[in-house]
Amino acid sequence: MKLTCSKDLLLHYINIVNKAVSSRTTLPILECILLHAETDRFTMTANNLELGIQTAPIDATIIQTGEIAIEAKIFHEIIRRLNGETVTLETGENNAITITGGTSRFTIMGQAGDDFPSLPQVAQEEAYTLGQNELRNLIRQTIFSISQESTKQILTGELFEMKEHCMHVVSIDGYRISFRKSPLEHEFAPKSVVVPGKTLTELMKILSQEEEDKVQLYFTEKHVLFDLGIATMVSRLLEGDYVSYENNFTEDYKTKLIIHTAELIQALERASLVSRDNRKTPVRLELRPNVLVITARSDMGTAYEEVPNETDGDEMQIAFNPRYLIEALRAIEDEKVAIRFTGSLSPCTIVPLEGNAYQYLILPLRM
Amino acid sequence: MKLTCSKDLLLHYINIVNKAVSSRTTLPILECILLHAETDRFTMTANNLELGIQTAPIDATIIQTGEIAIEAKIFHEIIRRLNGETVTLETGENNAITITGGTSRFTIMGQAGDDFPSLPQVAQEEAYTLGQNELRNLIRQTIFSISQESTKQILTGELFEMKEHCMHVVSIDGYRISFRKSPLEHEFAPKSVVVPGKTLTELMKILSQEEEDKVQLYFTEKHVLFDLGIATMVSRLLEGDYVSYENNFTEDYKTKLIIHTAELIQALERASLVSRDNRKTPVRLELRPNVLVITARSDMGTAYEEVPNETDGDEMQIAFNPRYLIEALRAIEDEKVAIRFTGSLSPCTIVPLEGNAYQYLILPLRM
Repeated sequence: MKLTCSKDLLLHYINIVNKAVSSRTTLPILECILLHAETDRFTMTANNLELGIQTAPIDATIIQTGEIAIEAKIFHEIIRRLNGETVTLETGENNAITITGGTSRFTIMGQAGDDFPSLPQVAQEEAYTLGQNELRNLIRQTIFSISQESTKQILTGELFEMKEHCMHVVSIDGYRISFRKSPLEHEFAPKSVVVPGKTLTELMKILSQEEEDKVQLYFTEKHVLFDLGIATMVSRLLEGDYVSYENNFTEDYKTKLIIHTAELIQALERASLVSRDNRKTPVRLELRPNVLVITARSDMGTAYEEVPNETDGDEMQIAFNPRYLIEALRAIEDEKVAIRFTGSLSPCTIVPLEGNAYQYLILPLRM
Repeated sequence: MKLTCSKDLLLHYINIVNKAVSSRTTLPILECILLHAETDRFTMTANNLELGIQTAPIDATIIQTGEIAIEAKIFHEIIRRLNGETVTLETGENNAITITGGTSRFTIMGQAGDDFPSLPQVAQEEAYTLGQNELRNLIRQTIFSISQESTKQILTGELFEMKEHCMHVVSIDGYRISFRKSPLEHEFAPKSVVVPGKTLTELMKILSQEEEDKVQLYFTEKHVLFDLGIATMVSRLLEGDYVSYENNFTEDYKTKLIIHTAELIQALERASLVSRDNRKTPVRLELRPNVLVITARSDMGTAYEEVPNETDGDEMQIAFNPRYLIEALRAIEDEKVAIRFTGSLSPCTIVPLEGNAYQYLILPLRM
């Protein structure tokens, strides 16, 4: 293989495929990026066996076809630090690759391209199309409440449900439910899959924030493929039935607050300060007429906060893990939210003032 | 104690005294800040027994005198996050302190002010005056080569030598010597002391970057006091004789390069990339007519770099730990530097093109 291409362009694509490079593994080939040059097509691929990314063809002058796998970390560092505008990549004997650019020349020991694991083939039949930024938001606003416990394997992913012209994204960790939905461009037959959290975390990092950029999603029985234009990402799906969640959301409530999102976050963060153990000390909410009083108590001392709001309904006292409230509120971009309470031992639900684009349900703690 | 003061002002002073708060200690009082209010004077003090900082009097409305020690971490977090402009601090029973501001009220368990260790008394007789920014530079440009080995206690500090109208600052770790000097406002009797590296690291963080701000240094047999105006810092000195270093610097050389500082740093950083072990793989320098060739080799591969320069003298080959060269070069603000070599087994010396404000000496590695 021998080719020349723009250093900045190469670096841009390395940053994309890097998201699927294994960092600690017993299989050194998974720490590599596969460089593959055909007569008119140069691509890079990374694959950690859970998740793979392949670039679109990269603009390059291909002098000789071939392929080689090179350790991602040093390849990235070398390209990043080169002082020229173009870079030449040339394979040599014993899987060596020589990288030349600016005033530098590196020869790095690579591995045979043959040893690099192939990406799963995903049939691209029915495409669900979304804005890349919208998909990024759907993930960002729900990913924080996936389960961290590997014993609940299915809950370490997020449920993607396509139904009624919408894509629903749901995460549940046993203490709370995060729900977001977004309209699709067409109506489809109902379908639901569970995508691993790790895949979504890496996907978020490469999704564009430009309004017009689109992403196509393709699902097969075992895999999902995200086509971002500049690259495709393929991931396995989690197998098994997701938890049924819809009956947990109700329209009933005894008390409803309409409250300033940022003010509530800040008051909860301050009240959490008296907790030594990373915000695990409960905060107590007292719903009084038009004021929410937040208190917390530990061996360090006590905190008392007042947050003005519009209260509708009964007075009530209820306790929460403050982190759960803060994470849900931080995911919300609206200046104000509505919070519905049905009782001291029942979950609260955070919803928008208008519409139904999101719902966050959080279980209380016993006082 | 009861007083009211500006939240922002209080936060500013907490950030200063925080530099002398112990982070991990078996003596919880050392994790505290002492608040002390007399009728017309409110100050804060932190003291980790090696190093203490006391603020200048802080503008406050003092309602009741008294003192209390409060854990620095939570005090800082609470004041930082309060949403009001002023804050009221009031002590209660059992060493409690109530902090009120904006929509918040905290009561935190503190400790008796009596238990807080006093700062050493340092007689302020002869003052050495420097610009704060200049002292910051003197430290920043030498601190990286203090010894990290506690077996060489005296070398974990920096030598401050006052002589010939100048302050000299020196650090030596056994492999290299960093030397900087700066003119003093007056001539003094010769004096030399060794200040602990930890003290200087913390001092750097609170020294002003404004050109006109001055710092006075006072030395006694066992202590140094830095008077910054907004606060005074007191530190013990290291005891013992510092290593004699002056004979290591010579004016003789066989080869001299005049080279672009940033280009050399970047070439050394790139060549270090083939080292897996944090830049411990030696780099080899080949001094050829008007070009410096840098090479490195490890089991990962090889690196080859060319850096143009003005060479004067013999061709030579010499090897270095690249980190030592990079750290010295990064400390230098000049666009170009001179590097003097006397032989493959002799140290090189990095000096300015004009004047003698700094000298960096680095031992080579055997090839």
